[in-house]
Amino acid sequence: MKNKTIRPSTCSNAIQESSICQTAHELAKLYSLGDVDAPDGLLGHAPGTRNTHEALRFLLDIVFPGKVTGTTISNDELGVFLLRRLSDAWHLLHQEIRRALLYRWLGEAARVEGKAPPSKENLDLEARRILKILLQKLVAIRRLVVEDIQAAYDGDPAALTFAEVQLTYPGLLAVAAHRIAHELYELNVPIIPRIMSEWVHSMTGTDIHPGARIGHAFFIDHATGVVIGETAQIGNHVKLYQGVTLGARSFKLDEEGNPVKHIKRHPTVKDEVVIYANATILGGDTVIGARSIIGSNVHLMESVPADSVVSANYPDVLIREKRRAKKT
Amino acid sequence: MKNKTIRPSTCSNAIQESSICQTAHELAKLYSLGDVDAPDGLLGHAPGTRNTHEALRFLLDIVFPGKVTGTTISNDELGVFLLRRLSDAWHLLHQEIRRALLYRWLGEAARVEGKAPPSKENLDLEARRILKILLQKLVAIRRLVVEDIQAAYDGDPAALTFAEVQLTYPGLLAVAAHRIAHELYELNVPIIPRIMSEWVHSMTGTDIHPGARIGHAFFIDHATGVVIGETAQIGNHVKLYQGVTLGARSFKLDEEGNPVKHIKRHPTVKDEVVIYANATILGGDTVIGARSIIGSNVHLMESVPADSVVSANYPDVLIREKRRAKKT
Amino acid sequence: MKNKTIRPSTCSNAIQESSICQTAHELAKLYSLGDVDAPDGLLGHAPGTRNTHEALRFLLDIVFPGKVTGTTISNDELGVFLLRRLSDAWHLLHQEIRRALLYRWLGEAARVEGKAPPSKENLDLEARRILKILLQKLVAIRRLVVEDIQAAYDGDPAALTFAEVQLTYPGLLAVAAHRIAHELYELNVPIIPRIMSEWVHSMTGTDIHPGARIGHAFFIDHATGVVIGETAQIGNHVKLYQGVTLGARSFKLDEEGNPVKHIKRHPTVKDEVVIYANATILGGDTVIGARSIIGSNVHLMESVPADSVVSANYPDVLIREKRRAKKT
Repeated sequence: MKNKTIRPSTCSNAIQESSICQTAHELAKLYSLGDVDAPDGLLGHAPGTRNTHEALRFLLDIVFPGKVTGTTISNDELGVFLLRRLSDAWHLLHQEIRRALLYRWLGEAARVEGKAPPSKENLDLEARRILKILLQKLVAIRRLVVEDIQAAYDGDPAALTFAEVQLTYPGLLAVAAHRIAHELYELNVPIIPRIMSEWVHSMTGTDIHPGARIGHAFFIDHATGVVIGETAQIGNHVKLYQGVTLGARSFKLDEEGNPVKHIKRHPTVKDEVVIYANATILGGDTVIGARSIIGSNVHLMESVPADSVVSANYPDVLIREKRRAKKT
Repeated sequence: MKNKTIRPSTCSNAIQESSICQTAHELAKLYSLGDVDAPDGLLGHAPGTRNTHEALRFLLDIVFPGKVTGTTISNDELGVFLLRRLSDAWHLLHQEIRRALLYRWLGEAARVEGKAPPSKENLDLEARRILKILLQKLVAIRRLVVEDIQAAYDGDPAALTFAEVQLTYPGLLAVAAHRIAHELYELNVPIIPRIMSEWVHSMTGTDIHPGARIGHAFFIDHATGVVIGETAQIGNHVKLYQGVTLGARSFKLDEEGNPVKHIKRHPTVKDEVVIYANATILGGDTVIGARSIIGSNVHLMESVPADSVVSANYPDVLIREKRRAKKT
Repeated sequence: MKNKTIRPSTCSNAIQESSICQTAHELAKLYSLGDVDAPDGLLGHAPGTRNTHEALRFLLDIVFPGKVTGTTISNDELGVFLLRRLSDAWHLLHQEIRRALLYRWLGEAARVEGKAPPSKENLDLEARRILKILLQKLVAIRRLVVEDIQAAYDGDPAALTFAEVQLTYPGLLAVAAHRIAHELYELNVPIIPRIMSEWVHSMTGTDIHPGARIGHAFFIDHATGVVIGETAQIGNHVKLYQGVTLGARSFKLDEEGNPVKHIKRHPTVKDEVVIYANATILGGDTVIGARSIIGSNVHLMESVPADSVVSANYPDVLIREKRRAKKT
């Protein structure tokens, strides 16, 4: 069967083409054609990243007009604009969610032996059910995005207009995309939420796992290098700066030496906390109490009570005069 | 008026389309149609990010040929190439700067009550005035870019040819874009400079606020995670590595608990300073004296004199032998 | 000659066009038209970044189907898909490698006086020789990518399916691109490998120099901010997290005060080592022994034996209660 996929007759005798043919033959043996989910799989049944990215861009255009596609919308166009973007997103996501749902069944089949694969009709119905809920959620997400914009404006001395904040702040883009991806995660859609979060990770340098639960009026300034893990919980009116990690504690392994899945591995951050640049907060039991301030470069693996100010006891810096170079 | 923007007659009875219609109706209420600058604004009057990105790419092609658009230019084509790129950038920026200038007036109107909005003619004239100055500045920027390329070549042992440096170093792209955005910032153009700096932030992971003042022969190696604030001042022949922050000091708030605007909040770095990876330097009064060397991961909130060598008194590392896992 | 390149007759009298013409005239003097490799060069002979990026995307589509172009491939299409991608990559790279080889000769000419420039025929033959070897290597690279995918799945508690890992993990993309770029580096192709590594650096925030030697089953989680230097050596089954630097030691200069080229400047990491987030390991003599664990934020400039656990003696954090703001 694998040999059938490449017909040697399509290869001429030209030097480069014969080596192309030979390479294609050898490569063709290295893809799993039978298994739907394998490390060497061909992904013929998986959701497409290009369509999913496009759908996310349409959804972002709705909750955050002008941010991603770069077009500015006049008042008169609003109705037609929303209908078109919603329709476009629906049609793209309907196909890709249907594909993703096959992987939900794979996970269930691994736990319940003999579970029958979903019918084409059932995949279709479930994809529609999910999309209808996502569309309803968009209204709440739009409200949250407006609050995030206000929080960014309030939180940055360099912000002069709302338009500047809306059009340029990468942290707002990362959070808006997260709010959409998180709804699909909550609806138990496999793969698609991660495709969305990795698109915005690539755009902004901010890596928020779709599972993270984030309150309203959230702001990440500068954004590059931020990592927020799957089971992190963040309250309302929280502000982060670049390079902050809300991560899993190192070295927590089961008796086999493997990382444990499906437990809370990442911190909880309560309302009105500020975490400055490059701070690292680790552990599923770590709780940062409300209104606390965490200084830059702090490394924290324990809880702190509400109203704490945590600063690193920065190591002394050694300042000495430079030896004069010979050539000066 | 808001209801007028969506005509229910455009919605059929199909299931998904009716939910699309309903969502569009609800969403339409969540955009401010009256206020030109609001957190829930529709940005109908704001500059477009897509055009601004395109214009920046054309300008970068001029000061840094081949870097962004990826086309190599032969000697014979140079004249036509420059004329075309300049014309294309002019036409795109003319429209977007006109749009941005409305937000300059908004800022002025907030300070001087009753200030009349600018006429269409005045916006047009001012946009032309700005563009003429920007074009003149491009000649000086081109000279600076050549010096930056030389500095990168001199400063990196891995650099073997100038072509390699020109075509691949992300720090050079970030600085070239900054030099263009900074001129528009100095010309008091709102929003556009930030759209430019965020485009290159997304491309390179380097976040330089357009307000930062940077001398000649500047080089940022590896580039990811660098943050340089609005009021930072950097001398000549300075070199930075990845992850360096020139930021605002934490916790400086006014009596209301809000960050103070329009004061120098970021450090000054004098000539020939080298700052190694992930160093953090904070505060508007902090001055790094000429020819100083700041070690990696240093956290500095005070000035150091010229010719200083500053290194972190790195915390001791604990090295112990791993307990043997049972399964080995 | 430079004046010839811009014909004033092409400029009309319109205001903006005359200033465009004037700027073009002044800019035209600032490009070196004679020297093939100069800091102010026009790169008319250099490889094009756009074609090289496109070729890399085709090659990645082969070793990592679906990852970059976002299309999912069915079993029946595999043969045609591989032939097309290989042919497309060949044709693009053939042209760009020929261009790059001119810079290899420039480097040799700098060392051996009077060395004749390569003929068009020789450049062509050498480019074909290189491409044939690269194509053969693709088979081994595909095998390595499958091992990398397995390592990512095993190493991350959040990974639920192989499809999710394949389609979304940025660290896998960075490593796959590195494996391709590294083969061209080993074949002594100038510039092209760096164009490839910088493309994936821009996409993922991971900066791996094409010279780095990396074993099989390598995994970088979160990926943003990782820097791996040219002479780093990494064993098998190694895992890194975001922000890890494997860099050169600071301050090592020759008697002239310049960095020394062509020596081992970056660390060696042995098999089965894990390095947690934001750790910095520096120096060409530094060796991390097999099976060692390096904690987050560790700063290490010395070797550690096999089976070490290295953790930073994190500086004490100061926790105090916040003074009550007056307005609460």
